[in-house]
Amino acid sequence: MSNSNEPRFGAGLWHFASYVDRYATDGYGAPLSTIDTIELAGSVGDLSVVDLNYPFTPGVGLSEVKDALKATNLTAIGITPEIYTRQWRKGAFTNPDVKERIAAIDLMHESAGVVRELGADYVKIWPGQDGWDYPFQVNHHDLWKLAVDGMRELAGGHPDLKFAIEYKPREPRVKMTWDSAARSIIGIQQIGLDNVGVLLDFGHSLYGGESPADAAQLLIDHGMLYGMDVNDNLRGWDDDLVVGTVHLTEIFEFFYTLKINGWNGVWQLDQFPFREDAVDAARTSIRFLKALHKALDVLDIPALQEAQERQDAMAAQRLVQDALLSCMATDK
Amino acid sequence: MSNSNEPRFGAGLWHFASYVDRYATDGYGAPLSTIDTIELAGSVGDLSVVDLNYPFTPGVGLSEVKDALKATNLTAIGITPEIYTRQWRKGAFTNPDVKERIAAIDLMHESAGVVRELGADYVKIWPGQDGWDYPFQVNHHDLWKLAVDGMRELAGGHPDLKFAIEYKPREPRVKMTWDSAARSIIGIQQIGLDNVGVLLDFGHSLYGGESPADAAQLLIDHGMLYGMDVNDNLRGWDDDLVVGTVHLTEIFEFFYTLKINGWNGVWQLDQFPFREDAVDAARTSIRFLKALHKALDVLDIPALQEAQERQDAMAAQRLVQDALLSCMATDK
Amino acid sequence: MSNSNEPRFGAGLWHFASYVDRYATDGYGAPLSTIDTIELAGSVGDLSVVDLNYPFTPGVGLSEVKDALKATNLTAIGITPEIYTRQWRKGAFTNPDVKERIAAIDLMHESAGVVRELGADYVKIWPGQDGWDYPFQVNHHDLWKLAVDGMRELAGGHPDLKFAIEYKPREPRVKMTWDSAARSIIGIQQIGLDNVGVLLDFGHSLYGGESPADAAQLLIDHGMLYGMDVNDNLRGWDDDLVVGTVHLTEIFEFFYTLKINGWNGVWQLDQFPFREDAVDAARTSIRFLKALHKALDVLDIPALQEAQERQDAMAAQRLVQDALLSCMATDK
Amino acid sequence: MSNSNEPRFGAGLWHFASYVDRYATDGYGAPLSTIDTIELAGSVGDLSVVDLNYPFTPGVGLSEVKDALKATNLTAIGITPEIYTRQWRKGAFTNPDVKERIAAIDLMHESAGVVRELGADYVKIWPGQDGWDYPFQVNHHDLWKLAVDGMRELAGGHPDLKFAIEYKPREPRVKMTWDSAARSIIGIQQIGLDNVGVLLDFGHSLYGGESPADAAQLLIDHGMLYGMDVNDNLRGWDDDLVVGTVHLTEIFEFFYTLKINGWNGVWQLDQFPFREDAVDAARTSIRFLKALHKALDVLDIPALQEAQERQDAMAAQRLVQDALLSCMATDK
Repeated sequence: MSNSNEPRFGAGLWHFASYVDRYATDGYGAPLSTIDTIELAGSVGDLSVVDLNYPFTPGVGLSEVKDALKATNLTAIGITPEIYTRQWRKGAFTNPDVKERIAAIDLMHESAGVVRELGADYVKIWPGQDGWDYPFQVNHHDLWKLAVDGMRELAGGHPDLKFAIEYKPREPRVKMTWDSAARSIIGIQQIGLDNVGVLLDFGHSLYGGESPADAAQLLIDHGMLYGMDVNDNLRGWDDDLVVGTVHLTEIFEFFYTLKINGWNGVWQLDQFPFREDAVDAARTSIRFLKALHKALDVLDIPALQEAQERQDAMAAQRLVQDALLSCMATDK
Repeated sequence: MSNSNEPRFGAGLWHFASYVDRYATDGYGAPLSTIDTIELAGSVGDLSVVDLNYPFTPGVGLSEVKDALKATNLTAIGITPEIYTRQWRKGAFTNPDVKERIAAIDLMHESAGVVRELGADYVKIWPGQDGWDYPFQVNHHDLWKLAVDGMRELAGGHPDLKFAIEYKPREPRVKMTWDSAARSIIGIQQIGLDNVGVLLDFGHSLYGGESPADAAQLLIDHGMLYGMDVNDNLRGWDDDLVVGTVHLTEIFEFFYTLKINGWNGVWQLDQFPFREDAVDAARTSIRFLKALHKALDVLDIPALQEAQERQDAMAAQRLVQDALLSCMATDK
Repeated sequence: MSNSNEPRFGAGLWHFASYVDRYATDGYGAPLSTIDTIELAGSVGDLSVVDLNYPFTPGVGLSEVKDALKATNLTAIGITPEIYTRQWRKGAFTNPDVKERIAAIDLMHESAGVVRELGADYVKIWPGQDGWDYPFQVNHHDLWKLAVDGMRELAGGHPDLKFAIEYKPREPRVKMTWDSAARSIIGIQQIGLDNVGVLLDFGHSLYGGESPADAAQLLIDHGMLYGMDVNDNLRGWDDDLVVGTVHLTEIFEFFYTLKINGWNGVWQLDQFPFREDAVDAARTSIRFLKALHKALDVLDIPALQEAQERQDAMAAQRLVQDALLSCMATDK
Repeated sequence: MSNSNEPRFGAGLWHFASYVDRYATDGYGAPLSTIDTIELAGSVGDLSVVDLNYPFTPGVGLSEVKDALKATNLTAIGITPEIYTRQWRKGAFTNPDVKERIAAIDLMHESAGVVRELGADYVKIWPGQDGWDYPFQVNHHDLWKLAVDGMRELAGGHPDLKFAIEYKPREPRVKMTWDSAARSIIGIQQIGLDNVGVLLDFGHSLYGGESPADAAQLLIDHGMLYGMDVNDNLRGWDDDLVVGTVHLTEIFEFFYTLKINGWNGVWQLDQFPFREDAVDAARTSIRFLKALHKALDVLDIPALQEAQERQDAMAAQRLVQDALLSCMATDK
């Protein structure tokens, strides 16, 4: 059986950081520097690219980062400006205070410079604090306008770069402005620039009530799928569990959809292994993703397409189970 | 304090029908004819308009319906073709069988004729069986194309009429094609006709994870809010409970949003009082909606807008509670 | 590798009926008699037992049912009295009308007689209409007392028989009285009889927010797991999808838990293939369940137990994936 | 109209702390000491009691805390040992490492001493890290046994004190051991001591799929409702929003249930005003709770009970709306 080439794997560097939350305020582990997390990422063995938070941790400069990436054979795929820390707890693009909006966009401009410096693919924009918490808190027309206008201003200033919005239904805000694939498409159309697209997070899509496969297809059909990352959850929250631990069929359908559309980007991890060893978690993920990739090779796609034309769910499921449930067999 | 004029109230005629479900297969009450339900609607006392399912129940003709509406002082606001019964259990626009797709559109064309005959405002399209149940059941690109192309064909044939799509996340399909406000906007833009819009069901929006107020604003900003109806639920399913029984603050924000946008359409009920007396349920609903309307008059809108500019949720809530929690006071 | 013996498979007869819901009021297919559905169940080929609704469809008597079961090599595992049809739309045990409560218990007594006649294992009690829809509708103390007292009266009258309560969070009621494993245990303890237990529906447990494996363990530890059935859903509703189409890992954990506890009952299907061929759906299910059973044989249980002692999720998942994702390999 | 006496109000001290989460790792505000938060609580003006985290912030001793409470006219209602910080990120009672289990119980013993010193009512046990994240991670029998045995050991050592378990479905663990009212009752029965009960958090109950009123009734009927606190959320997560901002009817039913049972404990706040002024949020809460208390006086309870006997949801709702929606009227 022919195997297509394996995909390139990547991860958000935060996968290797230590975490805090509102209960473990002293953190789930000792704090790590940007360099520490690059080294951990490098030790996984199968990662080619990373997405880096910006600013880097205190005392770490761009040249050090370049060196660390080089030493670990990693390259940067994206830069994620941290527009969701204390200064922007009330929002970045949609902050009620114009000074904070300006400061947020300044940081994003700066991040664009880092993208150029590192030769990365995009600035990833995740405006986690943009939105609202309470009914009646905001004027919805005005809030959305701030979100769209701010993105236009940002992306318009860097026509040579790509900007990937990562939508998410909620958290940390009770409700976020860029909350779904469809809403993101509308916003990007209102922006009216061709260098703005979407980074689809499998888990965000899943717990937002979308079919991630359907969301990917819709974004691809609009030419807006700039990137993606994977993880898993129980459909009620962004648990950021290790991929392949809960939703095997739907992650398979997601990658199947990318394959039949010829989407060949990086398979990225966006996971928060709060209580696990981060390297072990990454390796377990990639081990699964490789098996999944093999399953895609095994899958009888013409037969599946024929079943889908009839919308024959049972026939489709049997084909899927034949491929998926044999992908770990050692003698294949 | 000045009271603005009360809104016109309406209801889907199915509010007054008897129901079946997969357990009470003998129905929650004796079957009723279209004429029976018109008479029940007429007996509520505060309803001005109704939305009628089409075809009418067996043996009931258009002239009888006209007479019954006249006798009860009701007019038709919309016609809802029943494109979700056994024949279309696998979909109307997205049925895998082209013959059934054609049959569905034929029924919708026929419904358009009834809209003209009754002088109604729109054909309401609720494609409840369009979608999928299982991962891998459909090709998402093809399914969406069928949904959009079918609507274009239908609406294109009646440039003198309006077509209102009622989106819903799910049920009876595990996942429906027109599932949210944002997705509906994208689809209508792809249709490219100016006589297609949306009927926003408050409950569909709520349990789909939207803020109904935000969804209404987005649709108004796109000129697509053709109609709306209200009810309530526990955010996990389309319970179609009586409005005002659970989500008081959010239904208030929804009507507030309509008011500040000058949206003056009918306040319609879409409820399924399975175990309640339908007339009693409708009267309880309208009693609440009148109190809510009074609360809108009491609400200090300039102060609220000022609080929203600061995104001051606490100040906004105090203003809202002052208005909402006094609206039943008898001496106002 | 040694294979333990395959389990016996069963199904609720309703799996093979045709359905109605509140939209497809003319049904998803032509009505079928009890005998029709027995014959369909028999044609699946791998089913040993069925659970039958009672009363049988009009005109079908007990002797006919016996003959049909014999002809198809099926035996009855349980009888499910239909205490959720129109007459009991406001509840069976918790109906506000004492006459309806008596009538419901009478039907359940009658069903107990049918269990004896057919040599079945239990009367299955699924009080789907018991509960409430609206806040403030009921006095919670009184409602729960009716639920518990009624079950005690029923089961107390038949000390020779077993009664299995099938809990469910909701539907058709917005909120049901027997809604979870833990609540069921409390109620059964209050009943104080040793012939009352639980039938655990995998899907009910899953969409109710439980871990089905954990719920099974808790019930086993209380000696109350009388039966179980399986299906699948998207965690938000009782979709009654075909088992193995969404939650592969959790259904595997469920059966693993039964295995390590030595629970050897029937593997039953409780599915509603609204738009699928019922026999095809049952066969697809059993095909999957057999693969799952094989995976249980492959699973390295000592290593898994060792990982669980350390609560090492990654190690556990790798072992699980090794077994589960090879279970369809044809050469095993 | 006669007013019953106002309840005493309280708050978890953490209401006045500053927060971190996994995104705003630098915190939503500057860190505050235990003394700072006592002073903020005192400045609210309507609070009588507080629940204090233990250990206090670094450098703060018991005598200082006593002084600060005295100076602000506050008393301690409970002590909440912080058994969910880094050391116990893998669990307190259910930690796989016996050393950490012992250390956790030691901290709880120490907290019991603080309860005695401060004359508080109970040790509040909230084992937020006890549970699991992944399918197959734990042996469910063993985990639950650790949870129950640990609580027995703890409470058995202090027969003079009360221990209130605060159940919660999830967060920070993906699934927590003490997850619901019913499960807590089972566990407490297994513990077999009469000084263990429950603190019911309205929001935990709501997003766990319970009716908080029903859960309160069940706990009262078991003599286990030791305390409660309130807040609000969107039913999908523990948002810890300010009470009265979303679920007006259900919070009213909750307090109604307490009233008719003669439950006269403290009305406590457990809120996380991440982006709001904490004192303003507390005042807004208490303003609402006072109005709600007034609404309980206005409510026609005999008529409501008569409607509930008939399970007449519409009649009940009209009575509830009459009381609730007039409670802010200034001339009452």
